[in-house]
Amino acid sequence: MTHNKSYTLGEVASHLNLELVGDKNCVIHGLASLRNSSTGHLSFLSNSAYANQLESCAASAVIVEAKYAGVCKTNILISKSPYVSFAEATALFDDSDNTEPGVHPSAIIDSSVKLPESAQVAPYVVIESGVSIGENCVIGHGAYIGKNTTLGNDCHLHGNVSIYHQVSIGNNVIIHSGSVIGADGFGFAFDGEKFVKIHQLGSVQIGNDVEIGSCTTIDRGALENTVISDGVKIDNQVQIGHNTIIGEHSVICGCTGISGSVTIGKYCVMGGATGTVGHISIADHVKVSAMSLVSESISEPGSYSSGTWHMKTTQWKRSNIRFQQLDSIAKRLKELEKMANEK
Amino acid sequence: MTHNKSYTLGEVASHLNLELVGDKNCVIHGLASLRNSSTGHLSFLSNSAYANQLESCAASAVIVEAKYAGVCKTNILISKSPYVSFAEATALFDDSDNTEPGVHPSAIIDSSVKLPESAQVAPYVVIESGVSIGENCVIGHGAYIGKNTTLGNDCHLHGNVSIYHQVSIGNNVIIHSGSVIGADGFGFAFDGEKFVKIHQLGSVQIGNDVEIGSCTTIDRGALENTVISDGVKIDNQVQIGHNTIIGEHSVICGCTGISGSVTIGKYCVMGGATGTVGHISIADHVKVSAMSLVSESISEPGSYSSGTWHMKTTQWKRSNIRFQQLDSIAKRLKELEKMANEK
Amino acid sequence: MTHNKSYTLGEVASHLNLELVGDKNCVIHGLASLRNSSTGHLSFLSNSAYANQLESCAASAVIVEAKYAGVCKTNILISKSPYVSFAEATALFDDSDNTEPGVHPSAIIDSSVKLPESAQVAPYVVIESGVSIGENCVIGHGAYIGKNTTLGNDCHLHGNVSIYHQVSIGNNVIIHSGSVIGADGFGFAFDGEKFVKIHQLGSVQIGNDVEIGSCTTIDRGALENTVISDGVKIDNQVQIGHNTIIGEHSVICGCTGISGSVTIGKYCVMGGATGTVGHISIADHVKVSAMSLVSESISEPGSYSSGTWHMKTTQWKRSNIRFQQLDSIAKRLKELEKMANEK
Repeated sequence: MTHNKSYTLGEVASHLNLELVGDKNCVIHGLASLRNSSTGHLSFLSNSAYANQLESCAASAVIVEAKYAGVCKTNILISKSPYVSFAEATALFDDSDNTEPGVHPSAIIDSSVKLPESAQVAPYVVIESGVSIGENCVIGHGAYIGKNTTLGNDCHLHGNVSIYHQVSIGNNVIIHSGSVIGADGFGFAFDGEKFVKIHQLGSVQIGNDVEIGSCTTIDRGALENTVISDGVKIDNQVQIGHNTIIGEHSVICGCTGISGSVTIGKYCVMGGATGTVGHISIADHVKVSAMSLVSESISEPGSYSSGTWHMKTTQWKRSNIRFQQLDSIAKRLKELEKMANEK
Repeated sequence: MTHNKSYTLGEVASHLNLELVGDKNCVIHGLASLRNSSTGHLSFLSNSAYANQLESCAASAVIVEAKYAGVCKTNILISKSPYVSFAEATALFDDSDNTEPGVHPSAIIDSSVKLPESAQVAPYVVIESGVSIGENCVIGHGAYIGKNTTLGNDCHLHGNVSIYHQVSIGNNVIIHSGSVIGADGFGFAFDGEKFVKIHQLGSVQIGNDVEIGSCTTIDRGALENTVISDGVKIDNQVQIGHNTIIGEHSVICGCTGISGSVTIGKYCVMGGATGTVGHISIADHVKVSAMSLVSESISEPGSYSSGTWHMKTTQWKRSNIRFQQLDSIAKRLKELEKMANEK
Repeated sequence: MTHNKSYTLGEVASHLNLELVGDKNCVIHGLASLRNSSTGHLSFLSNSAYANQLESCAASAVIVEAKYAGVCKTNILISKSPYVSFAEATALFDDSDNTEPGVHPSAIIDSSVKLPESAQVAPYVVIESGVSIGENCVIGHGAYIGKNTTLGNDCHLHGNVSIYHQVSIGNNVIIHSGSVIGADGFGFAFDGEKFVKIHQLGSVQIGNDVEIGSCTTIDRGALENTVISDGVKIDNQVQIGHNTIIGEHSVICGCTGISGSVTIGKYCVMGGATGTVGHISIADHVKVSAMSLVSESISEPGSYSSGTWHMKTTQWKRSNIRFQQLDSIAKRLKELEKMANEK
């Protein structure tokens, strides 16, 4: 892909702090996979399964581990972690910035808010009283920040984000459009006839280096806070219930629903559209595969799954009929075993 | 947790209409669980399993049933339903109100709309022609109300809510940020080559005392209305299809998808991330456990589930291989039984 | 249902290009099902199972296939596809238009944008530099269009829609409120300690005649584009991952999550709350039933399912215990068979 920015390979090597073997004046105007690259592209080899594509790769330069240096006919950048170096390179070609510097005159900012000069505030933003905002923050179109909420430095709230009151957000946090942080947790007391609202008096505390996708919702706690720890990455359409705690550097993939009062450890991966029941704990380094439900606490690291694989619907119906008979099947089997053993 | 409001215990007892045993001048500045409470806190015992925490509880006062009155060393409020009384107490400490009284000058309100003086309308709200709004409504930042929609009294639309045209909303309804009420139901007629849109001519009718979470969507009906009855509580990220009817006081937990033309009874609980196929009925008092699919109508009250529990992925794969063979396993078992019986 | 528009039956026949048998001056003021219709209604018979309702139907006119012409006592419109004709009729009675003609003065439109006179732009819209907009587009309240994005003719973005930069949208595309198109795909490189963001340099390309529901998210690609082909219909609360390609005229029902780098064929139907793992392909004409996970590529057309049916929870628990033992059950069965055969 060709982007709107270009660099010499020497500049790229310098930005990424990598050793360059080849022509430092070669112009790089985009990034591409080994297979899709052509002149002007920087590519990368992060998976040795694709090493056979190196020779025929048409990129002007490739990021590789040192051991592949001899295989490439083109310019190379040597990295211990080519995939991480590639990630760093994507930052060089990002031209997504939409927001003019400064504060748009239509933004309504309470007089109690001391906005740093480095802030970029788009049209139709509303910032309520008592809000504190760090350096170099970008607040997109139509975003709302409720009273007494704090943002650290280098945060980017995209357009139409809604942050309720008293939320605490660390440094270098990205929140994509349509997400809602700090709405009321789902709590009611049943009085025998109707549900009485439990007003949600806690809030949400988000650490540093967190990214939150679009249309994701993180509820405020009932009495204590909901906590998203440093380095957590949350995809789109995720729901996180009140008083839940997500440990450092855990990854929550799209469409996942985490119930209330759940504790998830560090370096966990909740796959796409997974779920948990409430009031459970999940240990560090747990991976949950796509669309699985965690139905009780998990105390050991490892990979966990629930559900069944897809099948042709006709065959699946037959398996489902038998699933309903499964307890009886097991008992009948035991009976036969008993009979066989008695002979 | 300490909040921004405080009361004497006598004031709290009077608000909650509870009998006070102890010091009516004791100052309460927050609510906490038995375990997390300290001086100045009001706590509660709603589950007898935690009665052993009463003695060591550091709260300044506790809401308990009469039978526990003797156990507490501290001030007590006696309630027949401590959890409901606690819910009522949370209202006293809620300081979430973000909206200035009156109508912000940037709100664009059609001249046909007679807004009561009690209305609070935030910046950048748009209210279209023919809209009717009751007393004491709060309309948050950037919310949109389509033409001819009606709101009852005491409604709170949080920021960035979108209500399409001709929606009917009762009294005391809360809708959280990012939710969309009355967008087109998903209906198309296939002409053999492409899908022809069925314009959705019905609307959405929401009763009294309904709460709707954030990023929830309730579609307008095709010809008749989608109906959300009195007292229904809907969590975040819920999708309700066109022409569906949710009965009184039913609870729909987060990430649930209810298809079109479904009728759900009264006092049902759809657990988190549950789903239903379309065109079915679910009786009153049905509970569906987390992530279950209701694949046909349910005529009896009770608890229903689908899916499988989480397991270590390696073990789960083995079970899944066998699930695919389940019909054959059942037939082979029957064959063996036949052989055994013939002997 | 009675709507705000009315037509003579002759006008309706002419609009739908259908043969009329009966009174062309009969006034039609609404559409209804056979069962719910009364005087002034136009109804339709699309499913022969309901043919017995024709005789007692109180509608002023009915759309039927020619073979039913004799059965009706009332006026009829003869159609080869009554359901498609009904869909076309709904367009006649749609009175949902909320937007005033012209551009509201509060819309902030970059001076580089050449807006056609036919455009309708609601209050508080923001349109960034380099955006191109075709004829007859309607942009709802508070919508945001990022820089260099292009819209074809006859597009309707409802209120509070967020379109990021450089997105390409074809002709006749409808996007409902709260949806987010072009937010960053979910991509990170793990450096052994933390996740490094992979900036998403691709974009989203949406074809012609696409409809996208409310609170749906379609992520921009990492290096190449995410692609939604012509005629695709996407419901509410759907998540489509980066670099995924949806083939022409496929239907994605509500709450579905499609992972990244997935290719879905033409004329597929992903049922409600379905999901896919990443990096797989699905053939043309595949149907996936509600809440199923597609866990590997599907190369043959047909119907596919995963999961289990709902059961009473007590019975379901017994089946689940046995599901965990399923590999052992299968092995014990084989052992018994061996013993039986050895005799």
